[in-house]
Amino acid sequence: MSKVITSRAEDYSAWYNDIVRKAGLADHSAVRGCMVIKPDGFGIWENIKAQLDKMFKETGHVNAYFPLFIPKSFLSKEAEHVEGFAKECAVVTHHRLMNDPNGNGVVVDPSAKLEEELIVRPTSETIIWNTYKDWIKSYRDLPLLINQWANVVRWEMRTRLFLRTAEFLWQEGHTAHATSGEAVTETLTMLDVYAKFAEEYMAMPVIKGVKSANERFAGALDTYTIEALMQDGKALQAGTSHFLGQNFAKAFDVKYLNENQKEEYVWATSWGVSTRLMGGLIMTHSDDQGLVVPPKLAMTQVVIIPIPKPAAAIDEAAEKIMKELKALGISVKYDTDSKKRPGFKFAEYELKGVPVRLGIGNRDLEKGQVEVARRDTQEKSSQPLEGIAEYVLQLLDDIQNNLFNRAKAYRDSHITSVDSMEAFKATLDEKGGFVLAHWDGTTETEKKIKDLTKATLRCIPLDAKEEDGKCVLTGKPSKKRVLFARAY
Amino acid sequence: MSKVITSRAEDYSAWYNDIVRKAGLADHSAVRGCMVIKPDGFGIWENIKAQLDKMFKETGHVNAYFPLFIPKSFLSKEAEHVEGFAKECAVVTHHRLMNDPNGNGVVVDPSAKLEEELIVRPTSETIIWNTYKDWIKSYRDLPLLINQWANVVRWEMRTRLFLRTAEFLWQEGHTAHATSGEAVTETLTMLDVYAKFAEEYMAMPVIKGVKSANERFAGALDTYTIEALMQDGKALQAGTSHFLGQNFAKAFDVKYLNENQKEEYVWATSWGVSTRLMGGLIMTHSDDQGLVVPPKLAMTQVVIIPIPKPAAAIDEAAEKIMKELKALGISVKYDTDSKKRPGFKFAEYELKGVPVRLGIGNRDLEKGQVEVARRDTQEKSSQPLEGIAEYVLQLLDDIQNNLFNRAKAYRDSHITSVDSMEAFKATLDEKGGFVLAHWDGTTETEKKIKDLTKATLRCIPLDAKEEDGKCVLTGKPSKKRVLFARAY
Repeated sequence: MSKVITSRAEDYSAWYNDIVRKAGLADHSAVRGCMVIKPDGFGIWENIKAQLDKMFKETGHVNAYFPLFIPKSFLSKEAEHVEGFAKECAVVTHHRLMNDPNGNGVVVDPSAKLEEELIVRPTSETIIWNTYKDWIKSYRDLPLLINQWANVVRWEMRTRLFLRTAEFLWQEGHTAHATSGEAVTETLTMLDVYAKFAEEYMAMPVIKGVKSANERFAGALDTYTIEALMQDGKALQAGTSHFLGQNFAKAFDVKYLNENQKEEYVWATSWGVSTRLMGGLIMTHSDDQGLVVPPKLAMTQVVIIPIPKPAAAIDEAAEKIMKELKALGISVKYDTDSKKRPGFKFAEYELKGVPVRLGIGNRDLEKGQVEVARRDTQEKSSQPLEGIAEYVLQLLDDIQNNLFNRAKAYRDSHITSVDSMEAFKATLDEKGGFVLAHWDGTTETEKKIKDLTKATLRCIPLDAKEEDGKCVLTGKPSKKRVLFARAY
Repeated sequence: MSKVITSRAEDYSAWYNDIVRKAGLADHSAVRGCMVIKPDGFGIWENIKAQLDKMFKETGHVNAYFPLFIPKSFLSKEAEHVEGFAKECAVVTHHRLMNDPNGNGVVVDPSAKLEEELIVRPTSETIIWNTYKDWIKSYRDLPLLINQWANVVRWEMRTRLFLRTAEFLWQEGHTAHATSGEAVTETLTMLDVYAKFAEEYMAMPVIKGVKSANERFAGALDTYTIEALMQDGKALQAGTSHFLGQNFAKAFDVKYLNENQKEEYVWATSWGVSTRLMGGLIMTHSDDQGLVVPPKLAMTQVVIIPIPKPAAAIDEAAEKIMKELKALGISVKYDTDSKKRPGFKFAEYELKGVPVRLGIGNRDLEKGQVEVARRDTQEKSSQPLEGIAEYVLQLLDDIQNNLFNRAKAYRDSHITSVDSMEAFKATLDEKGGFVLAHWDGTTETEKKIKDLTKATLRCIPLDAKEEDGKCVLTGKPSKKRVLFARAY
């Protein structure tokens, strides 16, 4: 089993694909660019969803559902927005098929052409703000704090499982506020929710920042982001939160009567994370043996394996442990398949990233102990059966913390301050990771740096220190360092 | 507030629309036939989903996700299947928009025409069985028990919120088995899950049965159904479970090696319920004052209203009650809006169907009591503050049972056995409900009865008694009565 995964050193991209496919997370489908999320992948996504949903509700949001289709004219109402999405959208033009009169099977019925084409939503600002127009009349209707879990489609030409697919699953929050200040606060609150989720649940350290004008969401005044670092030294944008100003309110004429009976345009935010997080999760923790899943998001946290196979005494011990683990809220599976040998099972659960493996053999039982293997470090130890559930509970916590600390140490050691283009490029070529450099604030310079280095401006970190410096490319004055990286 | 809802007697259809829209459950969207599910409606759907998902997992199923799009050629592979869905599907033909060279805004880019059109899934048998082909090789891969929560699109011409919309949300189970017998068992297991959910959670009594050949799902060998009765005497098909035989396995060439190393086609089932259940929930319980929601599915089970408005002592009592209720797992809201009067709030929560309302005034507090109003019967009583949480817990249970018993009494009193077409028609015209009649088993007779009465054959009930009789239309021999009704 150990050779099923290409090593990271050999071919990082092949390693990633091997993990995704061989750990049973996702697969390509017959539809160009669309993936099938398999049960073991979807189970992790369900845990991600459940936790985020809880955090959204705790911050006052409710869920709703808006149409999959967007009339073409809606998409066009906000100029930058349509510019951003028109080139990669699925267009519905007909509503019926028919038998080909020439006998060539089933064809599109030309008489069923739609009067106006419908776009499969690439994001829902337009259809939602067209709806908010009916919902918002007075300051009493504000704030409106709504989230949607949905599928969206962006016709990407180069796709990669989870990281970039034509159809993907996501959540999109769309909120409406009476004032600019409230909307900005909301934007930052949700950025904090994302960062907290990424670090505390995915064990993936992130840097919070604001995007440059060039990297903003189409239609936003400001786009905030959380940026993570993958093991190959490339950055991953893991979530974004947009302050939309009054752009969509103006495009869809959404006004409210304020407390002084004066009409004003509404202020907006939107924010989203997607199944792309799965890619981030995989690339932050996994190793050459397979997937590594942080315990808080694992479908199965503990697997128990009978050695060499199920037997009455082992079954009994396993049942007892399972009961104790479940009582502590730990998900556990007892693998009783007697056709597979223990060594095969060990490799299989390693590949699938189950955080803790318990091996029980007759000799262990005689000594009143079990073998405990942790997935993150691959360390094994014998532990007393007595109190094993509490031990495992603590161990899961340790693994969660270790994964975060390990990822953070890697990330922190891959943030390099540079003061010249030579150092900039050499750092990216030799070490990878984030580069902190002074920048003159212009899109022109940002694009030139990208041409020279393939690095994009990931964000202006929220905690960037004020310091006098000179743009790494143009030498013009700069007040803070910004974050560059080659990115997914 | 009491006049906002059209009464059922006056106009049942307008009553339904009023409830859906004024209780804030859903609304029409700018896209023909597509609805917006508003937060209060979506909250109920989330509870439906959570409970069903739990029941699916308890019966061994896992969730996965398959593409939104289906290549046109896939839909055509199962002959009856394409016949059933081709006339009402959304067809994606292009993947890009462009600026009109003539300056007429944004238009479809003719150079971005797809080689093969994609259909927005009306149901996923075809794309899923095309995938299963890769997943199933041996008997060891079976059974495959997968469910998907998804949006689907069927281009309906006449739509009604929740009951029939172009886009709707649903779950679709797709299972694969080694034998016919296992697949039939699965089909019936899921029918039982649906019936249990309908009766125990939605408090909606249902009749389990099998559809006639004419009413079968396109591509199934047998379609099982749960049929409910709405308050206007019309039936609602609330869920279906299909035994698909080997039709899709043959269409997509899905074979497995059995234990004797012989290749065989795989056996299939599929089963689904949708946001249509929301329509059934509304029409089973609601009244002329508004929505009535069974406690087990209510977003907010209890609302506390300060009378006449918030005050220190009242707030303190409310906080204490809330804490006690929450400790019992009861969802509760304290409405502290001081701009609205109690009477207005009473009507509002009645309209929204909150099962239990607690009114707290200073006089009540002095007497150590609260006013308790139950939504189902609209009865009010004063109850001691001491032990109020346990009282409410029991009351929610009583309401749940009362709603089921009330609906069942109505349903049972609207099942009429008839032995002539005159009685058949008179029953439907004068009383409505289900009609139990002998039928000769032919599609021809079934269609003639529909032409004469507008009633469709809902199902052959699973518990139909064997009895000798004569077809109500043709007089030909029949062994059991079957269920007819006018239906949604």
